[in-house]
Amino acid sequence: MSARAVVLVSGGLDSATTLAIARHEGFECHGLSVHYGQRHLSELQAAKRVCSHLGAVDHREVAVGLDALGGSALTDPNIDVPTRQTDGIPVTYVPARNTVMLSIAMAHAEVIGANAVFIGVNAVDYSGYPDCRPAFIDAFANLSRWATRQGVETGQGLAVHAPLIQLTKADIIRRGVALGVDYAMTVSCYQADAGGAACGVCDSCRIRRDGFAQAGVLDPTLYQSGASG
Amino acid sequence: MSARAVVLVSGGLDSATTLAIARHEGFECHGLSVHYGQRHLSELQAAKRVCSHLGAVDHREVAVGLDALGGSALTDPNIDVPTRQTDGIPVTYVPARNTVMLSIAMAHAEVIGANAVFIGVNAVDYSGYPDCRPAFIDAFANLSRWATRQGVETGQGLAVHAPLIQLTKADIIRRGVALGVDYAMTVSCYQADAGGAACGVCDSCRIRRDGFAQAGVLDPTLYQSGASG
Repeated sequence: MSARAVVLVSGGLDSATTLAIARHEGFECHGLSVHYGQRHLSELQAAKRVCSHLGAVDHREVAVGLDALGGSALTDPNIDVPTRQTDGIPVTYVPARNTVMLSIAMAHAEVIGANAVFIGVNAVDYSGYPDCRPAFIDAFANLSRWATRQGVETGQGLAVHAPLIQLTKADIIRRGVALGVDYAMTVSCYQADAGGAACGVCDSCRIRRDGFAQAGVLDPTLYQSGASG
Repeated sequence: MSARAVVLVSGGLDSATTLAIARHEGFECHGLSVHYGQRHLSELQAAKRVCSHLGAVDHREVAVGLDALGGSALTDPNIDVPTRQTDGIPVTYVPARNTVMLSIAMAHAEVIGANAVFIGVNAVDYSGYPDCRPAFIDAFANLSRWATRQGVETGQGLAVHAPLIQLTKADIIRRGVALGVDYAMTVSCYQADAGGAACGVCDSCRIRRDGFAQAGVLDPTLYQSGASG
């Protein structure tokens, strides 16, 4: 029997690659999307397609109303998504986002009896968010030892896999292409339209486009008409 | 200026006492209730009353759809709430509940610039849930050092206060009474009715009733008609 894993799938490029890696490593993968009031709902539709395409055994969605707290351009319609790179941690950072997502993944893992969670965070070609670093992943894995029935009863926490954490965006794309990921299915844009077409100018679009160029892979992204693809 | 804190307030006895302690220690308290699909919605109405009564400067609610994951008698209507004490971790345990709640509290703290979070977990007279122990609280505080903008930029994580963690239920009640908590406002029952009246037979009712008896304090709980109060 395959080991069971919960894989956080946003519908973006990184999480699709993460799911492909988890499948390649032989895990029985249970996709989980967390809807935290982000603007880009079309990413969640992409998540369903990605889970189906890449062989997750199922896919669940959990909503968490972080928009009630504000504080990010991704959850507060009064804060514009910036169109150029800024110093420091940008306004698209959603406070405590990865902790909230890993917590919900841990809850799901506990219910279905999974020992592993996969998350597509990346600390190289990324937006500079704090909760994407190896020390964060290690601290969460340590927490899981004390936070669940299984952890306390067995003394073993979750294995938290972040297989992209030290890869460049170009490396991630090359790895995904080798594993058969169809990136045309994915949506990374912070302000994609209802059909999933990308703006071409936000931080996430910029990093993604540069990644395809550096990987020497044709960019299959659907851009909004007039966007610089 | 007072230090600012987020206080998790469920509407139950423990979190009301925790809020009173945080106020007594001089914190500017921001109440936060997390609605995770639990059955006892009347607890959340109690949370509003408690925050107002005990001087929180505001109160927010965040919903998180843990009921989509199942696995607990508190979120799954197909699992009955037990009416007698069981060995081990009971079915009322909500997987990863305290991690999810602390994560959302951490997000709120980051948005409002609070350095402290209070949670009313208790590891003495409690239901035996895993995520109520000092090691869990310490692991979460350590995680916060790596999980937020403030943690990464300053090297300082959140102070996670769990002032009840080593108290008996009777001690908690005595402390609350001394601080002016009106426990008639609180609802602890796992299956309270729409008016907040308690069943008298679930684990939470049993622990609460015994606490009042041991503290020598008149139990002000409103029980459902026919319930053993």
